Amino acid sequence: MAERSLAFPAGEYARRIAALQSEMALHGCDALLLTAQADIFYATGFLTRFWESPARPWFVVVPAHGDPIAVIPSIGQDLMARSWISDIRTWDAPDPIDDGVGLLSEVLCETVPGTGCIGVPMGLETSLRMPLGDYARVTGRIAPRRFIDATEVVHRVREVKSEAEIDRIRTICAIADAAFDKVPDIVREGPALDRVFRQFQMALLAEGADWVSYTAGGAGQGGYGDVISPAAPVALREGDILMLDTGAVKDGYFCDFDRNFAIGTPSDDARHGHAVLHHATEAALAQLRPGMRACDAHRILSTAIAGQGAIPGGGRLGHGLGVTLTEWPSFTTKDLSVLREGMVLTLEPAVVLAPGRIMVHEENIVLRADGPELLSRRAPAELPVIAL
Amino acid sequence: MAERSLAFPAGEYARRIAALQSEMALHGCDALLLTAQADIFYATGFLTRFWESPARPWFVVVPAHGDPIAVIPSIGQDLMARSWISDIRTWDAPDPIDDGVGLLSEVLCETVPGTGCIGVPMGLETSLRMPLGDYARVTGRIAPRRFIDATEVVHRVREVKSEAEIDRIRTICAIADAAFDKVPDIVREGPALDRVFRQFQMALLAEGADWVSYTAGGAGQGGYGDVISPAAPVALREGDILMLDTGAVKDGYFCDFDRNFAIGTPSDDARHGHAVLHHATEAALAQLRPGMRACDAHRILSTAIAGQGAIPGGGRLGHGLGVTLTEWPSFTTKDLSVLREGMVLTLEPAVVLAPGRIMVHEENIVLRADGPELLSRRAPAELPVIAL
Repeated sequence: MAERSLAFPAGEYARRIAALQSEMALHGCDALLLTAQADIFYATGFLTRFWESPARPWFVVVPAHGDPIAVIPSIGQDLMARSWISDIRTWDAPDPIDDGVGLLSEVLCETVPGTGCIGVPMGLETSLRMPLGDYARVTGRIAPRRFIDATEVVHRVREVKSEAEIDRIRTICAIADAAFDKVPDIVREGPALDRVFRQFQMALLAEGADWVSYTAGGAGQGGYGDVISPAAPVALREGDILMLDTGAVKDGYFCDFDRNFAIGTPSDDARHGHAVLHHATEAALAQLRPGMRACDAHRILSTAIAGQGAIPGGGRLGHGLGVTLTEWPSFTTKDLSVLREGMVLTLEPAVVLAPGRIMVHEENIVLRADGPELLSRRAPAELPVIAL
Repeated sequence: MAERSLAFPAGEYARRIAALQSEMALHGCDALLLTAQADIFYATGFLTRFWESPARPWFVVVPAHGDPIAVIPSIGQDLMARSWISDIRTWDAPDPIDDGVGLLSEVLCETVPGTGCIGVPMGLETSLRMPLGDYARVTGRIAPRRFIDATEVVHRVREVKSEAEIDRIRTICAIADAAFDKVPDIVREGPALDRVFRQFQMALLAEGADWVSYTAGGAGQGGYGDVISPAAPVALREGDILMLDTGAVKDGYFCDFDRNFAIGTPSDDARHGHAVLHHATEAALAQLRPGMRACDAHRILSTAIAGQGAIPGGGRLGHGLGVTLTEWPSFTTKDLSVLREGMVLTLEPAVVLAPGRIMVHEENIVLRADGPELLSRRAPAELPVIAL
């Protein structure tokens, strides 16, 4: 299985590490410690679903100069050795006495001068994937070296996608497009919502997804109450609006978009809601440019919704996308992040149809110098109808 | 979708919270802060795949007495309100200025006396799912209250499964059994390994899995090199040993077992390896009892393997199972955890067939007073052969 684990040509990884090291220099980091699945995949190409097991921590240390060092459980030795990483240190995990603390501390001391700083992502949308107690132990062992926040280091690099990455996301978007095309048939064959969710996941796999990390949705008369529920074994019925949302994965890259369907003839409100969302998305597709801020994207979408006499949904109206289902920035009023050329983003306007009834519309784009390029196939302007 | 989110009758949750509170008292915790998907699902029944998005932290505070308090992003309000939890505090996340820090600190101060201790799991197999920077901010805000390690509190309660939980795991094991039955047909229809992985996931969904959080496997001449790789687009061939491993999910509960198949006539070594693993598992099924330790399970399995002149694989030879793919304890020489009645465990002996060639066998059991009860259907004694 050797050819699969090296996700991109080595030049792509050399570029990424150089970019991380350049940001590290700007932020005073003498090394960078990565513990999260997405960050480690980004730096090394190490792709496995084994992260689903919380039993073992995994570490990658990016030094100020030179190639990363993988400090990992021995169960991952074989797979990591097929990546571009050559310096791999392993221990037999899980070990209740020392679960990599000694080995990681050694590597950090070897890599970083006596009073140096080691960057660790500590900010919004990050978490440290190792036991907190072990982090404290490593902190003690490496002193006077110390850990500092490196959220910006990782975010500024990962947020701009290479053409090779954009191609990956385009591929999984096309897979999801093809699966969404099958939804009317799936619903007509048996409208129990849990069955529809299962069949939709099977359609994603049949179209070529490696796996389906996320499916959610909603269904309810004239709209739905929430967008994160698993499916219940209840039948869809005339008047329902069905929404399916997916984060399917191909070669480690995610899509994240949804589609709405009317079950039988939709109400005027539902039809209007869909038109409003479609129009708001058109406004963002026309107006969004590099140099704007995340809050500008929120303003464009919510203004377009309000301009049609509708109420924008709360929460964010879009976000980044790539090696995780959602990435920074967030299209909210508070997020001042600058939108950059090469960012892959979702446009996710939501409208309130009635108290507790919303509709959400989502597309995936890459931001080019002259505006957005769609990666998902544009949703139809009119709400599609599935006759039962 | 109301009926689905309340995973168990409220009595099951009352029992769990009482058990946590009893352990909290033993460990000097005036409250318990949960941030991990599995812990929050366990305490509340809150089930969503939305955890796949790293954008937002989620908190549940278990006080010394009384019901838990959910401190969550408003996007989860609707779903959490359908659980048994009634005290739900929300904020609009992600918020770059205060992403729940103020609200969580308030709840902790309200729940815990001035110099009290708040338990947080910090040990083996845990991680804190919130930004490290925000954890430091909360630590400052709640002083002189302080965080202490509560790994034992959570582990001692979650590790013993109720009959309702065991039923859930039995159900998903039966779904995986039925999907494994389809593997010979899947392979004969087209032996490219990536296609086999996709079709196997589709079979799991078709048999009733809600989703498939984990599939991995291996394939190689006379054995495989590792067990955590995704699949490459290479065709299986005569002489290969194919192993498929899955953690599929139904109602939030996992199975975790594998099956081996010979592609064409297996070598004597491969056939013998499978027989050795089958025999070792029989030894564990016969001998394992509550009161033994995790290291005893390792000893039983590795002694049975070595007793047949074979070399046991490195790493752990089994582990806990439940609301995550793998749970403590680990069947290693170093894990002294006591095996308790009601623990759901995997028996996962591995044998080294040649340098870099292993075979792994796995079953799921619940430990009863008089020994293991199988939850997966027992693998055949002889290595199954798939003729291409």
